[in-house]
Amino acid sequence: MINVIGIGQNRENMTLGALKAIEESDVIIGYKKYINQIHDLIQDKEIIQKGMGDEIFRAELAIKKSLEGLNVSLISSGDPGVFGMANVLYQIVSKYDDVEIKVFPGVSALNYASSILGAPLNDFAAISLSNILTPLSEIEKKLKYALEANLIVAIYNPISKTRKEPFKIFKQCVLDIKGDDTLVGIVDSTFEPPKSTITEIKDLTEDMVNMSCTLIVGNDLTYVLDNKLITPRGYVIRSKIHELSRNHYEKFLNGEIAHGPNRECEFYPCHYEGQYCDFCYCPFYPCGDSSTCGTWIKGKNVWNCKDCTWLHEKESVECLRQPLENILEEVEDLKTKKKSLLKLRRACLLKNNPNNL
Amino acid sequence: MINVIGIGQNRENMTLGALKAIEESDVIIGYKKYINQIHDLIQDKEIIQKGMGDEIFRAELAIKKSLEGLNVSLISSGDPGVFGMANVLYQIVSKYDDVEIKVFPGVSALNYASSILGAPLNDFAAISLSNILTPLSEIEKKLKYALEANLIVAIYNPISKTRKEPFKIFKQCVLDIKGDDTLVGIVDSTFEPPKSTITEIKDLTEDMVNMSCTLIVGNDLTYVLDNKLITPRGYVIRSKIHELSRNHYEKFLNGEIAHGPNRECEFYPCHYEGQYCDFCYCPFYPCGDSSTCGTWIKGKNVWNCKDCTWLHEKESVECLRQPLENILEEVEDLKTKKKSLLKLRRACLLKNNPNNL
Repeated sequence: MINVIGIGQNRENMTLGALKAIEESDVIIGYKKYINQIHDLIQDKEIIQKGMGDEIFRAELAIKKSLEGLNVSLISSGDPGVFGMANVLYQIVSKYDDVEIKVFPGVSALNYASSILGAPLNDFAAISLSNILTPLSEIEKKLKYALEANLIVAIYNPISKTRKEPFKIFKQCVLDIKGDDTLVGIVDSTFEPPKSTITEIKDLTEDMVNMSCTLIVGNDLTYVLDNKLITPRGYVIRSKIHELSRNHYEKFLNGEIAHGPNRECEFYPCHYEGQYCDFCYCPFYPCGDSSTCGTWIKGKNVWNCKDCTWLHEKESVECLRQPLENILEEVEDLKTKKKSLLKLRRACLLKNNPNNL
Repeated sequence: MINVIGIGQNRENMTLGALKAIEESDVIIGYKKYINQIHDLIQDKEIIQKGMGDEIFRAELAIKKSLEGLNVSLISSGDPGVFGMANVLYQIVSKYDDVEIKVFPGVSALNYASSILGAPLNDFAAISLSNILTPLSEIEKKLKYALEANLIVAIYNPISKTRKEPFKIFKQCVLDIKGDDTLVGIVDSTFEPPKSTITEIKDLTEDMVNMSCTLIVGNDLTYVLDNKLITPRGYVIRSKIHELSRNHYEKFLNGEIAHGPNRECEFYPCHYEGQYCDFCYCPFYPCGDSSTCGTWIKGKNVWNCKDCTWLHEKESVECLRQPLENILEEVEDLKTKKKSLLKLRRACLLKNNPNNL
């Protein structure tokens, strides 16, 4: 029996199953660093430590010991299914008959890094920058498509002493596709507890990153608040319809709200000269999404959109207006159809098709 | 204090940290199904169970209880950072001062599903098909780019009784971009132990999938062997250079191997009429990668490439030949430069740039 075990990043995120399987094993095989991580658990066992890069040898050894009737644990950090030993073992196990394998999934580096950074994930990609087995051209293609798709991108194996080229390519891809100010979270497990940093891609340099780092690249909605990296998913926050908003949308539904700047309004321009006033009151209030610069007023339960001008930009209004008219049949729909409204907001923010929600 | 806890998919893959935090909590808040999963651990605690869809309400409740000085656990299945409660909580916590949050990462559904299916992951994307908060146009775009990039694609929330449209779009994207025979692994956690199925996308129907399923879509290299879904990463398997191969590559290095079919060879055509013979012996042997139809002969430690014709196809040879000549300086390089050789093979297999390894 071979247990392919993910031990997580630390004892706290090791699973109960991993712990039990290790305890019940006769032989423990793994890369030295990971063996050290569980040293206190395996004092009475045969321990085979190997250097990095001997993956196939470790897998062969596990099979050999298993065929001798021993209960073997093959150790990966994180999750053995994510750039770990499961893949290696399956590459060669079909040489043999009757080798029983059980994979114990673990907390992978991207999940751990995210838990430390805040809540940066939504739909995401996980890409290793190691070009030991994977051509650079393949890595570059995956990066480009993932960034273009607006996926969050988790980066494994960002750099090593001898491998710096993939990191350069990575940085250039993010600069070119997402722009200078794209947010990147770095979790460095060289330290215990790990050190986390949030920076913009333009300020990310090689000396900030090492083999023990996991990077999380934000998408077009990701923001930093109170030192946490957050990608909003857009849950519905229920709220009353403000009386002034109600008045505005009654007129809107009657076709009485003009398109563009309303220079006749006594408050014009409340935000900036040239602003569009179609949505004098925000139909998405409170979105709770700081990616457009709104924030909660602490202790008051009030969402403050003073700094959000997105809703008054020509491009936003032109994307939103027609689909919004289709969604709203009566003013109450600002409450009852809030999910559809927030999806419309999201589609226009991300420049996707607002008619296909 | 709010612990945002991922309890994994079952007790075996719950983490030690999650267990301890739950045990030390005063209040447990979560969706009913997840509360049931840990019922035996929380008999002495205040339990607040809520229905699906009340995420913001659950988060507000956790904050309220925490501000009362209680130790609260907010429960997610899998990993709370992957389509879980971490995101919801951070959307509203900045309303308040001094709420302490700790996220306990967990084994996410894609990691669990992969452990059951075999070793299907390499670089991957995780995409939720739920269009409750995310516009269909956004989901479709992410799917298309991830599939085009040749990422493995893990699908969360594939379908529900009322949401079938995203699943239709998903299936059509895979058919259009990857083709009829793209492999899909399905892990259905309605059953305990979960039921796993491996199928081709053309045979994937709505009745095979439900809300408790995670899907893993293979890439261009993914294969099925002994009922396991495997995506090869291409680890180097060391091997001697066969004498006949040595002879062939000595001639190759001397420029004595002609390009194209070798009709003068007494064995021609050993594979099929029209085959290219530039690589009479495989320079990648043994690749150990069944995606091109080679297999291990069980019990013999012999890699059998009888069914692999990829190396003899015109297109393959034209991609490989020049870069191979650049890599090989002497026959021994078939052993010593095997990593570069395998990367070249991979680049040509995936139709990426063979000169950028």
